[in-house]
Amino acid sequence: MKVSVVAGGAGFIGSNLLRFLSKENRHLVILDDLCRGREEYLNPVRNVYSENIHFMKIDLSDSIQTLKGFEFAQTFGDVDEVWHLAANSDIPAGILDSKIDLRDTFMTTFSLLEAMRKRKVGTMHFASSSAIYGDMGNTPIHEAIGPLFPISNYGAMKLASEALISAAAESFLDRANIFRFPNVVGSPATHGVILDFINKLICTPDRLVVLGDGTQKKSYLHVSDLVDAMIFVSRSPPKQKIDAINVGPSDAGVSVRWIAETVAKRFGTNPKIHYGIGNKGWVGDVPRFEYSIEKISAYGWAPKYSSESAIKIAIDEIAKQLGR
Amino acid sequence: MKVSVVAGGAGFIGSNLLRFLSKENRHLVILDDLCRGREEYLNPVRNVYSENIHFMKIDLSDSIQTLKGFEFAQTFGDVDEVWHLAANSDIPAGILDSKIDLRDTFMTTFSLLEAMRKRKVGTMHFASSSAIYGDMGNTPIHEAIGPLFPISNYGAMKLASEALISAAAESFLDRANIFRFPNVVGSPATHGVILDFINKLICTPDRLVVLGDGTQKKSYLHVSDLVDAMIFVSRSPPKQKIDAINVGPSDAGVSVRWIAETVAKRFGTNPKIHYGIGNKGWVGDVPRFEYSIEKISAYGWAPKYSSESAIKIAIDEIAKQLGR
Repeated sequence: MKVSVVAGGAGFIGSNLLRFLSKENRHLVILDDLCRGREEYLNPVRNVYSENIHFMKIDLSDSIQTLKGFEFAQTFGDVDEVWHLAANSDIPAGILDSKIDLRDTFMTTFSLLEAMRKRKVGTMHFASSSAIYGDMGNTPIHEAIGPLFPISNYGAMKLASEALISAAAESFLDRANIFRFPNVVGSPATHGVILDFINKLICTPDRLVVLGDGTQKKSYLHVSDLVDAMIFVSRSPPKQKIDAINVGPSDAGVSVRWIAETVAKRFGTNPKIHYGIGNKGWVGDVPRFEYSIEKISAYGWAPKYSSESAIKIAIDEIAKQLGR
Repeated sequence: MKVSVVAGGAGFIGSNLLRFLSKENRHLVILDDLCRGREEYLNPVRNVYSENIHFMKIDLSDSIQTLKGFEFAQTFGDVDEVWHLAANSDIPAGILDSKIDLRDTFMTTFSLLEAMRKRKVGTMHFASSSAIYGDMGNTPIHEAIGPLFPISNYGAMKLASEALISAAAESFLDRANIFRFPNVVGSPATHGVILDFINKLICTPDRLVVLGDGTQKKSYLHVSDLVDAMIFVSRSPPKQKIDAINVGPSDAGVSVRWIAETVAKRFGTNPKIHYGIGNKGWVGDVPRFEYSIEKISAYGWAPKYSSESAIKIAIDEIAKQLGR
């Protein structure tokens, strides 16, 4: 049986990916520092495939610990791929303290590549981000657009990670897939606009403070669509050694105002919604973008949910997650 | 009097930049670890403007030391710009040990930006590289081309640095100029193909071993043209807050074979030239590229030297530097 290393596998996207990967007959070795992820997120998949699921708590920004993680993984068999989902997911936090994204988003990539080189693992699937593109205004964002001027440290360290992976692909990797996606919603939510609004309404049902003027319009992808797309591409024959692929819904997205109103409606409260000033929620927030998914469509994949459906489903899932 | 911080100012490009900057009436504070640079490279400019030239030996990949460098600089007046030329310049070394470019090319950028944020310095001029583009084949390389897949750790860490500067421009910088240039030649040479060939011929005048098959065709820019271009752009009114600008000669370059023969001719020896296999000198070497300088041409700047002239002048300069 082959072995997949899933870095950041106890997080939001990671734990969803495990559900899909566990259907393949392979060992899954989850490496996570449990800083934002939680070991309990592994329970659904552990309950079904307990003997194939292996967890090790390590700090992936540390080269020595990461190498130990790979040695652990290789005790179960031949490690033939690494899913790299380890990152800081709190973008505003990374604006205030740039060391956070340096360590959690970039140095994790550095350590993982070092370990892959040393332990001769040839394939990486990397969770990058639409944040690498920065603010492209109304220009449709396809994979070859430039120049790339990310406006958050998160986006910068995702782009830096892509660059390192690219150099590694020239030097020792056999295959690298770089998935660039916008906001992803679903459960178990650890951050994001829906969780934020629900948490606020739980505390103060009569009012809801929104960052920015609510006109920010963005694409939202349901986590099940994202994971489906990543599995689809990773299990297809490679088009080239290194590939960067946008994954997103096929629509232009929804406004933050619409999300606020939809969350409020779901909770049956009628809060006064207080909007801020400007079309950015925070420094480094990209107010709107047109996301092109022509490339992955040409590969033969299509999303199941629109931004609107993804948000509506995610509101229910996150409400359930919070016991509401 | 205003103060310029010149990071990596004792290196090849840095020491040439100082000659131009010293004509402006400002203090120049050079921060360099003297790993590849040498303090003696500062002598020509120190001999003329001794009271305005200040040197501090520090490791710019260390945040605390870098901050001390800025505090030192600010004792001379208002620091209004940082020239960031600090980097590993030995690309093959960075392929063998990725920690070199991580520390010298990337972490220097991280520390400098941290210090600029803390000490409220708003303008950065950054020496990036054509290496960020990777291998684009025969497509002319303009600034907005993509996707960006650098093939060396050097190129990766230059792109990573650009990304960090871009996020900083959104957050706290007033202006950032990113200069992307190919091979630069001239003296004091610390590395590069000409120095390599001359050193080899000094030891073994009857033979010259060339990395790769000699067909690699590249653009070469004379360091005086590069510095002239950077000064020109930095002293022009900004087109936008952050700008990425190719600087290069206007020709398609010369082959490594031609350089080998020209160096041999200059030294009056008639060596047997031994070529390697393949069109890459090393892993991460970009065998050929078409470099577009349309953007800087539209800004009103033109190079003085072709690749051929730049190489010929540089051979003489480097021979003189080595006392030959």
